[in-house]
Amino acid sequence: MPKRKLETCFSPALFEPDGHLNSIVVIIDILRASSAICTAFANGAASIIPVAEAEEAREYKSKGYLVAAERDGFILDFADFGNSPFNFTKEKVKGKTIVYSTTNGTGIINLSLSSYMTVIGSFLNIGALTRWLISQDNNVLLLCAGWKNRFNIEDTVCSGAIAEILMRSNHFKTICDSTIAAMDLWAMASPDLPGYIDKSAQRSRLRDKNLDDCIEFCLTIDYTDKIPVMKNGALVADL
Amino acid sequence: MPKRKLETCFSPALFEPDGHLNSIVVIIDILRASSAICTAFANGAASIIPVAEAEEAREYKSKGYLVAAERDGFILDFADFGNSPFNFTKEKVKGKTIVYSTTNGTGIINLSLSSYMTVIGSFLNIGALTRWLISQDNNVLLLCAGWKNRFNIEDTVCSGAIAEILMRSNHFKTICDSTIAAMDLWAMASPDLPGYIDKSAQRSRLRDKNLDDCIEFCLTIDYTDKIPVMKNGALVADL
Repeated sequence: MPKRKLETCFSPALFEPDGHLNSIVVIIDILRASSAICTAFANGAASIIPVAEAEEAREYKSKGYLVAAERDGFILDFADFGNSPFNFTKEKVKGKTIVYSTTNGTGIINLSLSSYMTVIGSFLNIGALTRWLISQDNNVLLLCAGWKNRFNIEDTVCSGAIAEILMRSNHFKTICDSTIAAMDLWAMASPDLPGYIDKSAQRSRLRDKNLDDCIEFCLTIDYTDKIPVMKNGALVADL
Repeated sequence: MPKRKLETCFSPALFEPDGHLNSIVVIIDILRASSAICTAFANGAASIIPVAEAEEAREYKSKGYLVAAERDGFILDFADFGNSPFNFTKEKVKGKTIVYSTTNGTGIINLSLSSYMTVIGSFLNIGALTRWLISQDNNVLLLCAGWKNRFNIEDTVCSGAIAEILMRSNHFKTICDSTIAAMDLWAMASPDLPGYIDKSAQRSRLRDKNLDDCIEFCLTIDYTDKIPVMKNGALVADL
């Protein structure tokens, strides 16, 4: 079987939708949206409806939905809770549909919908995710959410970790400089991942707002084997 | 004196003109535009007029200007020569004004003109450039040309090398993830720079077209102390 193409995109602003019609797109926003989404499914959430606009989330709330919504790390006043994975407990989410809107993560999910399939990646589900990607026949694009369209370290390092496993499987090839650089940054970060992430701007942002208590958790490898996937406008954990 | 801000931008598509009105913008496109421009001034060129569109370059040619113009590595049919630094010899360029249009490099120069000042950086002038940047009072943005708006390794590594010298001077601070990542990639690349650049997609592109003969030269540290700067619509080496 010919090798499949692996590419990485460091920012939604660099994403070229037409180039990935047959690719599985992996959305990576580890501090904190993609980690929170993986946690929600690990704790039994039925589905997650990502919405880009706060106003849309507010409308869902008025219809009785459970709503997670934040901007720049702070919970929106009408929401049930914000963006920390620690909010998505079994007690709150089991069997529920959650409407979810964050600064970066949800807009980018909608952006990628022209691709073959959109899934959610993080360190929390990296083992299950990469085994599944290897078992498929599609090209893969790792799409980092970044921070307000800018490159960020934490998503890049996670994309490098995923790329490293895919390339090691021998089922993928890459001529993408972003993938090569991400793998090198992962090689540099992996001996002390929390120490490396500590250099990132988002780490400082969360620390300044006392929102950094979940970072260690977000760096946990293989916390869950759930792979959130977009189907009919909602994320489900049912590939 | 308070420390000045150092930022890095991996692609023209990520450049936010309004954020850099008081910054010196360093354009980095080492394979091959920024290296060729530094070489031209090292060999005595009087000035270089960057034009984004091939058609504009053709009009200058019809007025009798010396024209360097390429697209995707190939010389345009009306041009005197293309984009290799080896074209910009003393015999050809001394005392001359050159009109210059390339795939990536010249469009990005025009993009940055709202900043305080636009200069050209490469390994060829890295010593003189960094000494001068340190001696100024301005924030600095390292703007990588990339490849058709994508991240590329060679410009990133050069920006990391420049950033490393600026940060070491103790006159700059950064909270920019791109700068931190670029410095780490430079640390990884510097023990064997040609070997590292060999992994990049542009290296393969140039090799496939037999245009890679100048890569070793483009990685030469401190070939010249000229710092090309935009003044009144043209690059000159007169700060």
